Amino acid sequence: MSTMIYNVTAVLMDPAHTVLPNAYVVVDGHQIVDFGAQRPQGFTGKCIDGKGGILLPGLVNAHTHVPMTAMRGYGDGNNLQDWLHNFIFPVEAKWDDRAVRACAALGLAEMIASGVTCIADMYMHTDAVLREVESAGISANVSCGGVQFEEPFDPDKNHDCAVQRALTEQWHGRDDGRIRVDASIHGEYTSHAGLWDWMAQYAADHGLGMHVHLSETQTEHEACKSRHGGKTPAAVLAEHGVFDVRAIAAHCVWTTPEDWALLAEKGVSAIHNPVSNLKLGSGVAPVVDLKKAGVNVALGTDGVSSNNCTDFFGDLKLAAILQNGVRCDPLALTAWDALEMATVNGGKALGRKTGRIEKGYEADLILLDSEALNLIPCHDAANNLAYAAHGSNVVMNMARGKVIYKNGEFLTIDIDRVKKEVAGYALPLLFGR
Amino acid sequence: MSTMIYNVTAVLMDPAHTVLPNAYVVVDGHQIVDFGAQRPQGFTGKCIDGKGGILLPGLVNAHTHVPMTAMRGYGDGNNLQDWLHNFIFPVEAKWDDRAVRACAALGLAEMIASGVTCIADMYMHTDAVLREVESAGISANVSCGGVQFEEPFDPDKNHDCAVQRALTEQWHGRDDGRIRVDASIHGEYTSHAGLWDWMAQYAADHGLGMHVHLSETQTEHEACKSRHGGKTPAAVLAEHGVFDVRAIAAHCVWTTPEDWALLAEKGVSAIHNPVSNLKLGSGVAPVVDLKKAGVNVALGTDGVSSNNCTDFFGDLKLAAILQNGVRCDPLALTAWDALEMATVNGGKALGRKTGRIEKGYEADLILLDSEALNLIPCHDAANNLAYAAHGSNVVMNMARGKVIYKNGEFLTIDIDRVKKEVAGYALPLLFGR
Repeated sequence: MSTMIYNVTAVLMDPAHTVLPNAYVVVDGHQIVDFGAQRPQGFTGKCIDGKGGILLPGLVNAHTHVPMTAMRGYGDGNNLQDWLHNFIFPVEAKWDDRAVRACAALGLAEMIASGVTCIADMYMHTDAVLREVESAGISANVSCGGVQFEEPFDPDKNHDCAVQRALTEQWHGRDDGRIRVDASIHGEYTSHAGLWDWMAQYAADHGLGMHVHLSETQTEHEACKSRHGGKTPAAVLAEHGVFDVRAIAAHCVWTTPEDWALLAEKGVSAIHNPVSNLKLGSGVAPVVDLKKAGVNVALGTDGVSSNNCTDFFGDLKLAAILQNGVRCDPLALTAWDALEMATVNGGKALGRKTGRIEKGYEADLILLDSEALNLIPCHDAANNLAYAAHGSNVVMNMARGKVIYKNGEFLTIDIDRVKKEVAGYALPLLFGR
Repeated sequence: MSTMIYNVTAVLMDPAHTVLPNAYVVVDGHQIVDFGAQRPQGFTGKCIDGKGGILLPGLVNAHTHVPMTAMRGYGDGNNLQDWLHNFIFPVEAKWDDRAVRACAALGLAEMIASGVTCIADMYMHTDAVLREVESAGISANVSCGGVQFEEPFDPDKNHDCAVQRALTEQWHGRDDGRIRVDASIHGEYTSHAGLWDWMAQYAADHGLGMHVHLSETQTEHEACKSRHGGKTPAAVLAEHGVFDVRAIAAHCVWTTPEDWALLAEKGVSAIHNPVSNLKLGSGVAPVVDLKKAGVNVALGTDGVSSNNCTDFFGDLKLAAILQNGVRCDPLALTAWDALEMATVNGGKALGRKTGRIEKGYEADLILLDSEALNLIPCHDAANNLAYAAHGSNVVMNMARGKVIYKNGEFLTIDIDRVKKEVAGYALPLLFGR
């Protein structure tokens, strides 16, 4: 049966930046089949009154590590190496699938409540993450974050090659493409040429995308150049074919003009994680330069351990204002630029028809309460969405045509059970308390 | 009658950074009279069960222009001069007291809902702002933003001198000091020596504080140096005695090492407005340097027209992470540094005993729901407050001992009436629609 959402201001996220007042959108199955400015007569399906709210395509969180919700604020206030080696890594060694599932569900719930309908996740215990994604109802490109610490490389002995094969076979394309498995390389600095070649070939052979971390910190970027005769991480990975498939590169903070040209040429999307980059002292990504070079830039939260929350509207606002400030240019990025990064650019980055209100696109839609104090007055819907909205303004999250969150209630996640599982199982396992 | 709030994790904001689990706080009149780690027996006053929430001193928004809530998102996407001259100033010329009251009430409600209990406001139609502050119940240092466009200066003809005299007489110290009037100079670039001398003397004579904008943009800073033989705005205003009283200087983005030493010597507090500074392309204030020089740094939202909301936890988070990012130092500022800027430093800046849970301090207290998804888990209360909390987590706002907001309900503001007044009166007056 079709569903019509009516009585909304629809922000289409089309190239013309159309905002339709008093609009309707019709959804059939998991797709948008119609939309317009006046409610059609004689519609016989289910109707949802948007009550004058703002309807926006669901937000795309294009780089995250969702189980790391367990480490929210854990070890903050230490330098990066201490934080990783004395806090994060020791805890990560204790994970089991059950704990990952609990913490992934908690993280997904937080994202869903703030309007995210699609994610790109990279984490270990990937199968456990996928089970929670499957039941939560959002779309996801999920990857295991391939590492290769030992040489020589043997694909039959490398743990992540085995994981990659199993994930692809069991999960890729499930639920009519809602769930996709990406190939992945955690980073140039945590692997070697053997894995790069194997993953690049595997992705090409199986029609997968690629997810990597790229030039997040200056240390990582410079160390790569030292190891590889002055070549940057982007150049090194490109040489090994890693970017010959649809690919997303998280961070790109220290990328160079040559890297921007390379990423544009290869069609690699840069995933900007402004909160994480600031908090961890990584720097400010050259988003304006990347865009000027023709690179598709999308937005991510990174893991909650380095954010420390996933109110995606907060990340969107920071993306919208940060470039202006550091470049001393109030027009460096506009509200529309930031909204595109959070929606349609994310869809493009993940190879999905999501992030726009358009016929044939996924019915990933969120509704915001226009009566919320922080959205009054509304001189311009885009400005309010980019600079003033909070995740708490989201009153409905429809993912692939299915309402999964409404007025504070989760319809696909038993949040009380999840909280109990986190407090009663995951936290004692990970933190001994 | 005394009130006890119990069953809370109390973040005292004392120099030792004490976090008291299972704590209580007793309030009598408008002050905190007791607090501790175990609920005392035999208490006979009113009891409020904090239900395991986090109790924090109320947040201090130390620089704002609250009626500008009316211009939320208005003219965004234009350069600074176009924005001011084609959007903001023409609208400001249309204000009347009634419209200011409606928009001030809307802005105060938004702040109260996100945990603000004390503000420093600077705006025209100041009497109208003060009326709304009075009924809302929060504390405020209010100023008119003195300007002097014409020379020669005549205090009997300058509009803002008359306003200053009237405000001081009618409002300063009202409600046992809850409402204070500050002297003010909008900025070096909007006034001349006559007003500086007069305001400095007036403030000294009447025991008032001083509120100024200082070196917000590079243009403003450099133009001052051109006009005044290389002297910065801080140096120029200091020469005229403007900083010989307790003073707050908003922005300080382009202040120099000499300015930092001067501000520290004079005891001037710098008010950091990170969202506004980024959004308007003003730059990034040298907060770490100001702190190192011994300057008290507090936090403000600036007007909603340049923010574009007042979820003060969002501003707090940006303050906490921005310096780390631009200095590539994950320890440039800590969670505690940011929390201090938002609470106790703000109290100090405004000459008030607020921003700490301590006997004899104002009973300005906010309670956050620790069961909110974005606050789970809680490894460290300060980290969660600085990096993960949202305004929407605030379930109670107690200002000067009186609960003014609880579970989404305003107890001192008729929010439906305010919304009607904004939509039915203020917006038509200001925007002709």
